[in-house]
Amino acid sequence: MPSLLESPWDNGIHPIIVIIEDNDEDFYAFVRAIRSLNALDQMLSDYKLLRFQDGDKALDYLLRREEYEGLKAPLPIFILLDLNLPGTDGREIVHQLKQNPNLQVLPVVVLTSSASPSDIQTCYRYGVNSYLLKPMGVSTMQQTVQALFQYWFQFAILPNVNSG
Amino acid sequence: MPSLLESPWDNGIHPIIVIIEDNDEDFYAFVRAIRSLNALDQMLSDYKLLRFQDGDKALDYLLRREEYEGLKAPLPIFILLDLNLPGTDGREIVHQLKQNPNLQVLPVVVLTSSASPSDIQTCYRYGVNSYLLKPMGVSTMQQTVQALFQYWFQFAILPNVNSG
Repeated sequence: MPSLLESPWDNGIHPIIVIIEDNDEDFYAFVRAIRSLNALDQMLSDYKLLRFQDGDKALDYLLRREEYEGLKAPLPIFILLDLNLPGTDGREIVHQLKQNPNLQVLPVVVLTSSASPSDIQTCYRYGVNSYLLKPMGVSTMQQTVQALFQYWFQFAILPNVNSG
Repeated sequence: MPSLLESPWDNGIHPIIVIIEDNDEDFYAFVRAIRSLNALDQMLSDYKLLRFQDGDKALDYLLRREEYEGLKAPLPIFILLDLNLPGTDGREIVHQLKQNPNLQVLPVVVLTSSASPSDIQTCYRYGVNSYLLKPMGVSTMQQTVQALFQYWFQFAILPNVNSG
């Protein structure tokens, strides 16, 4: 299991997957789905999960500002993003990240319960890498989580976010 | 099997997946991998594959210019792109598509034999949705093709490219 990082300051050398999700139930359903898939769990064991519940805090962390000024830990390698969040919402986070020369290469996948065509268009227009719907039920959550991580971590080649 | 469209002018109502690939061997290995995976083959049977071997022609088609001026058929829903191509190369195709307000939402996945860090960074910086390496061998090609289409056509929500 990718262990949960309590604070961005705690990270040593492990690559980080950031999850920006305010809903506890959704977040823990996601974590349980990873744990239930043994092969996936193994594959992700070198990674750390870092969760933010608030869009402003997540941006502060990614942009290394406010309380995260001076943080030397590497940038995360992947972001999973809910859309409706306290603080800056997910749409605006995509927009800001994809316009930022240092962060634009970072893969961002939206995982939301919004099937609104306007949200889908807006996120792709802002440059999101892909858009997934939060599945209902344990088994569909497992399938989605498996497809998501297999595709991005076993097949896709990710950019080097920390190369400047 | 998604049938091969001989010409963009032949399409009626089927959603189109565009493959921009100049190498015959790679293209047919890809098509054979789809055919060999029955579940995938079924899933894609409503789609048409449209292949371009030249970057300039592909851009002319996507931008509806030159010989494709006046073409009324809908835009493709997905693009699979090789990098080294005659005419405009794949990097520049990503750049042009992602800067075009009408085409920027269109998901573009690179499938290339280049593992060059500079190609990977450039494509992500230009806004590619993801980047895959051409696998060696039949079985790894099948796995990659399966992961690619399952992720994008069974789990991801694609934008409506034709909504303007």
